[in-house]
Amino acid sequence: MKRSYNIVELIRKKRDGKALTAEEIHHLITSYTKDELPDYQMSAFLMASFLNGLNDEESAAFTKEMLHSGQVLDLSEIPGVKVDKHSTGGVGDKVSVLLAPIVAAAGVPVPMISGRGLGHTGGTLDKLESITGFNVNLNLEQYRDVLARHNMVLIGQTEDIAPADKRMYALRDVTATVECIPLIAGSIMSKKLAEGIDALVLDVKFGDGAFMKTIEDARKLAEKLVSIGLEFKKDTIAYLTNMEQPLGNAIGNWLEIKESIDGLSGNGPDDLMEVTYLLSGTMIYQGKKADSIEEGIAVAKEMVSSGKALKKLRDIVEEQDGDVNLIDHPETYPKASVTKDLRANMDGCVTKLDAFACGLASLETGAGRRTKEDEIDPTTGIYLHKKVGDDVKKGDVLATLYAGSEEQMSQAVELLEKAFTFSETSVKAEKMVHARIDKDGFHEEK
Amino acid sequence: MKRSYNIVELIRKKRDGKALTAEEIHHLITSYTKDELPDYQMSAFLMASFLNGLNDEESAAFTKEMLHSGQVLDLSEIPGVKVDKHSTGGVGDKVSVLLAPIVAAAGVPVPMISGRGLGHTGGTLDKLESITGFNVNLNLEQYRDVLARHNMVLIGQTEDIAPADKRMYALRDVTATVECIPLIAGSIMSKKLAEGIDALVLDVKFGDGAFMKTIEDARKLAEKLVSIGLEFKKDTIAYLTNMEQPLGNAIGNWLEIKESIDGLSGNGPDDLMEVTYLLSGTMIYQGKKADSIEEGIAVAKEMVSSGKALKKLRDIVEEQDGDVNLIDHPETYPKASVTKDLRANMDGCVTKLDAFACGLASLETGAGRRTKEDEIDPTTGIYLHKKVGDDVKKGDVLATLYAGSEEQMSQAVELLEKAFTFSETSVKAEKMVHARIDKDGFHEEK
Repeated sequence: MKRSYNIVELIRKKRDGKALTAEEIHHLITSYTKDELPDYQMSAFLMASFLNGLNDEESAAFTKEMLHSGQVLDLSEIPGVKVDKHSTGGVGDKVSVLLAPIVAAAGVPVPMISGRGLGHTGGTLDKLESITGFNVNLNLEQYRDVLARHNMVLIGQTEDIAPADKRMYALRDVTATVECIPLIAGSIMSKKLAEGIDALVLDVKFGDGAFMKTIEDARKLAEKLVSIGLEFKKDTIAYLTNMEQPLGNAIGNWLEIKESIDGLSGNGPDDLMEVTYLLSGTMIYQGKKADSIEEGIAVAKEMVSSGKALKKLRDIVEEQDGDVNLIDHPETYPKASVTKDLRANMDGCVTKLDAFACGLASLETGAGRRTKEDEIDPTTGIYLHKKVGDDVKKGDVLATLYAGSEEQMSQAVELLEKAFTFSETSVKAEKMVHARIDKDGFHEEK
Repeated sequence: MKRSYNIVELIRKKRDGKALTAEEIHHLITSYTKDELPDYQMSAFLMASFLNGLNDEESAAFTKEMLHSGQVLDLSEIPGVKVDKHSTGGVGDKVSVLLAPIVAAAGVPVPMISGRGLGHTGGTLDKLESITGFNVNLNLEQYRDVLARHNMVLIGQTEDIAPADKRMYALRDVTATVECIPLIAGSIMSKKLAEGIDALVLDVKFGDGAFMKTIEDARKLAEKLVSIGLEFKKDTIAYLTNMEQPLGNAIGNWLEIKESIDGLSGNGPDDLMEVTYLLSGTMIYQGKKADSIEEGIAVAKEMVSSGKALKKLRDIVEEQDGDVNLIDHPETYPKASVTKDLRANMDGCVTKLDAFACGLASLETGAGRRTKEDEIDPTTGIYLHKKVGDDVKKGDVLATLYAGSEEQMSQAVELLEKAFTFSETSVKAEKMVHARIDKDGFHEEK
């Protein structure tokens, strides 16, 4: 029996704090994608959802409808447990670039679809495209073929993936309904589930430089994401990781690729490598190439120390038309127009390094986008020589900035100066990983 | 200095439960009326306002913007304190038809602009138009002229009055944001203030047959209405009156005009006359033709017993092209196609007479509109012979129904039967007037 729905009644139901059925959510989203439900009704529904929430069943139903609004890839003919990773975004977060080759080298297929950066955060796609020639626009056949041969593929989102989410996001953006955990979770998960994965690891960041400013909000989002993943029978594990200060030392597209090459060569900064090994190890465990996360981490470290992970990156760059000479000789990359060192004007210990301010400063150098149409200069960005917990002497270089012009440089310097806070007494950097959330619940990391 | 506003920021502010400034609300509404703010942003704002509320200052600012979106009449050249009345609507509520001539006869100008009925409630305009020839479409010049000569005029809303409210209401209707007290109050008050009045009495009804089902909600609405009126420096008094059962005995357009003529002839039902005298007396007091509400009530009663109020109605019917013969000889009015008595099938006392069910039954006879386009049959409706507290014997006539067709009659009878509840023990009808709300606050009636 086909029920006839009154859209106003569905909006009223959510307005009054009641839960919609999966069938009602199906009707809502399909009516919207078929242009039978106007934007003004959807925006009223979204605001009611923002203020009254969506429960786990509603979030899963919402995700399902967005997922099935477009193409859902089927990778079942490729053997192995396909695992991907998603990060909610941060400053200096190049973990995907290291992690995909590590996990692939360990024999776990990683079908990775990434996004672009906007505002103070970067995007994996922009970083990859800083490698001259690297092609992120593969068609579906090429995507499958590269994945089958290399256990890895790196592409951008296509128009065919979750188009309802794209349209809904554009509406949320202009109606102040973006920062809503169930809607964010549905948006993330619909795109990830469309990739045809079997398992997923999520890096949910908290702090100044993250989308979620507090641990509490990050935890709520992580729990919602895991709940949706499990509802879809995907092995889903989330970590809450620190984004008070940038991850690693490099911010900016090529600078981050270079730091990733360093990391895969065994010379990465500790905080970056800690997160990279944890997430890689988890994926290797989810991909059944290790019996525990700890064992997975050991395998991940072995992939780096043996050089297999770096070789995997080189192979994929070659496969996707990138200039492998840049992987072998990163020092040959073109230099930014303007370079400048920011120096300490006093002795002390770095007690705070505001990731958000660093992100904005990097944006100023030319490394980011204010609007979707802005162009990026891949040579620009910031290299941090000092981070939280480091003692500095007056005159020490705190950071080196790479900008597209003198004007960009002076604005970036001004912002970056404000990102540093010093004290006379020494401090220690906060722990990187706060907690793990999986099917058994919340586990605080020691 | 002109501030530039980001509409998304204004939506976000309301979403986060903060109050908007008068200037921000001005920007929001004027952008909307100038088509610079799309419906989908306004509906998100309306849902946020529905769920987070608007404080008294915001409600007044909102009302002001809707008021000034159209023509605001200036009646200052007409001497005296111009007073109007607004009812939130009920079943059998013909108080305006009695009250306007009573108050005008007492020397207080009543510039009354009324609306049409929709759903289970009737509208004063439809009732007036059941008087053959009665013209509610006067232009502004005629409106002023009739008011000046008769202390009274009865017209319908024009397109020029509060057009932003009209557009906003249409949007609220399809986005489940109608039942929001500050928005309802703003909508009512913007239209009333546009009439050019100096004072206003409000009849806020509660119960099954009213828009507000509970005393609590009716009180909230009344307080908001009074607060807005006072903010605009208008002497504003509200009453909370009972709408559990229909007011008076007649429901349906001509039937209610006939009952009004009876009332003005000194033969009205007690409940109807209690409300009529209270509201009329209040308006006579507000119009400075009495020193207290009690004295105003005495003046109102004198206007009826002397025949001056009935004469005033006759004069205005003549002035506005209505057939005065119908006022003098209401028994000559055309009869409905089908008439039927509903009889009691047991002995007992009427303990409940559901006003909502009566309103729906009357709608079925042909006396109301389901959609704005429906046509009304002025001869149809219901006359209640028994009401709450009346003892009935098996076979007594409970009500007489007047319908446009046999089919309409059978549906109306079925609904009306369900409206009556009987018990073996006698009960008394609830008190009509629950409370008064004015500049000094809430006063429960004894």
